[in-house]
Amino acid sequence: MRFATVTPADGSTTAAVDPGDGWRRLPAPHLSAYLDEFSDRPVSGLIGEPVRPAGMALPLPAPRKVICCGLNYADHILEMGRELPAHPTLFAKYADTLTGPADDIALPPGLHVDWEAELAVVVGAEIRGAGRAEAAAAIWGYTIANDVSVRDWQKRTLQWFQGKAWDRTTPIGPVVVTADALDPAAGLEVVCRVDGVERQRGDTSSLVFDAAALVAYVSTFTRLRPGDLVLTGTPGGVGMGMTPPVYLADGAVLETEITGIGVLRNRIVVKD
Amino acid sequence: MRFATVTPADGSTTAAVDPGDGWRRLPAPHLSAYLDEFSDRPVSGLIGEPVRPAGMALPLPAPRKVICCGLNYADHILEMGRELPAHPTLFAKYADTLTGPADDIALPPGLHVDWEAELAVVVGAEIRGAGRAEAAAAIWGYTIANDVSVRDWQKRTLQWFQGKAWDRTTPIGPVVVTADALDPAAGLEVVCRVDGVERQRGDTSSLVFDAAALVAYVSTFTRLRPGDLVLTGTPGGVGMGMTPPVYLADGAVLETEITGIGVLRNRIVVKD
Repeated sequence: MRFATVTPADGSTTAAVDPGDGWRRLPAPHLSAYLDEFSDRPVSGLIGEPVRPAGMALPLPAPRKVICCGLNYADHILEMGRELPAHPTLFAKYADTLTGPADDIALPPGLHVDWEAELAVVVGAEIRGAGRAEAAAAIWGYTIANDVSVRDWQKRTLQWFQGKAWDRTTPIGPVVVTADALDPAAGLEVVCRVDGVERQRGDTSSLVFDAAALVAYVSTFTRLRPGDLVLTGTPGGVGMGMTPPVYLADGAVLETEITGIGVLRNRIVVKD
Repeated sequence: MRFATVTPADGSTTAAVDPGDGWRRLPAPHLSAYLDEFSDRPVSGLIGEPVRPAGMALPLPAPRKVICCGLNYADHILEMGRELPAHPTLFAKYADTLTGPADDIALPPGLHVDWEAELAVVVGAEIRGAGRAEAAAAIWGYTIANDVSVRDWQKRTLQWFQGKAWDRTTPIGPVVVTADALDPAAGLEVVCRVDGVERQRGDTSSLVFDAAALVAYVSTFTRLRPGDLVLTGTPGGVGMGMTPPVYLADGAVLETEITGIGVLRNRIVVKD
């Protein structure tokens, strides 16, 4: 089943579900609020009136945690000149880092802005210290992310965080597809295009640490709750891996697509 | 002036202020809620009844961001074998990482748990893209932190986050002293003791990036809001820098003290 935070024509937002015949309202303003209140209840009793989306909003505007894995596709690891890892490399974002599936990504001039198409896992239950089976059962669904990265800031110091946490630079959406309807282990194509040119194409079946493994690992040290996001890393083909490196310019259109979920389409806007 | 989240004998918590003659109630359950609602109002009109604390709670249980600086004291940088940095090294924690000034710090067996006494800056205004003067004016006050670190997890990968974000391992408190009453640039002593033995002693006047510089730098890429925390890094003397390295064992008592603020006293509890 598909869930989203949709924007009706009146400019509000509402959580919504598509049971198969179109979008219907859910009793919450967005999916973060929906999961906070209803993650332990079946959706069937909550489905309201049909709603016609004028647009799709950031589905999960208020995650408590957005934890990202780097270096998780073998081809991307090799292009960065590294060896296959024994443990996932993790870093953090905040809710402020996220933006909607069709939003402009505004950044000041002079930065080296790069793309990283990713499958994002949406947590649907509260877990800590989960084994693989519990972690797998706690996955509510999947959505698309682009971990847009400010490479010059990422590389200023040993820690990537300051290049990864610019406000409103990580688009998420456009929908969340529930885990019963999508199997990343069977192989979903993760594609990134810049101005129509394909730059990344990966397959989620080649993740070094898959969704359940990542969720279980993270839950060893911190509690995950409904609506939290775990980003699974990006395949090869990022701009900083090209010779010479290529970065996103003002006006560039960034498309991020995953089979069975949809596509993010975001424009880079460079301004002071 | 001193602010705190205190625990009266009834087990509740309340935000409180000490105008000089003892603790008085403020109209919020803790300082995070107090700053959310009243950061733009003078405290004078909000001071309520006297309250007798049975204990001190985590003063800021709900920051949206906890952003930490590593490698910020010249002596600690040198003991880690690094050069003085051109930019602050930053990493993130979440609200869940924090714990109270007298709470036990519970961790599973087998980890290399180390201490890092730090001055923490409490943000009191919403800022983004602030220069030094605006950043300095946005500092509400200062408190104490110990960035207790799981070194083996910190060093598993290039990114420190997974060793820095174990739930309930970073004690904060016991009070927040407002910026008009405390000047880190004039030199506050930051001291860490383990089982009564002094392990760290630093002076905040020797910070490479001082409080205002850090707040301004962080605000370049992300919005800071009232109640957010910026940790300023730790002086020399951590356990992993000793020969051989020394880590915190079950039952160890960790004391973290800063002149003019107070002392954190936390016991390490190792359990599955």
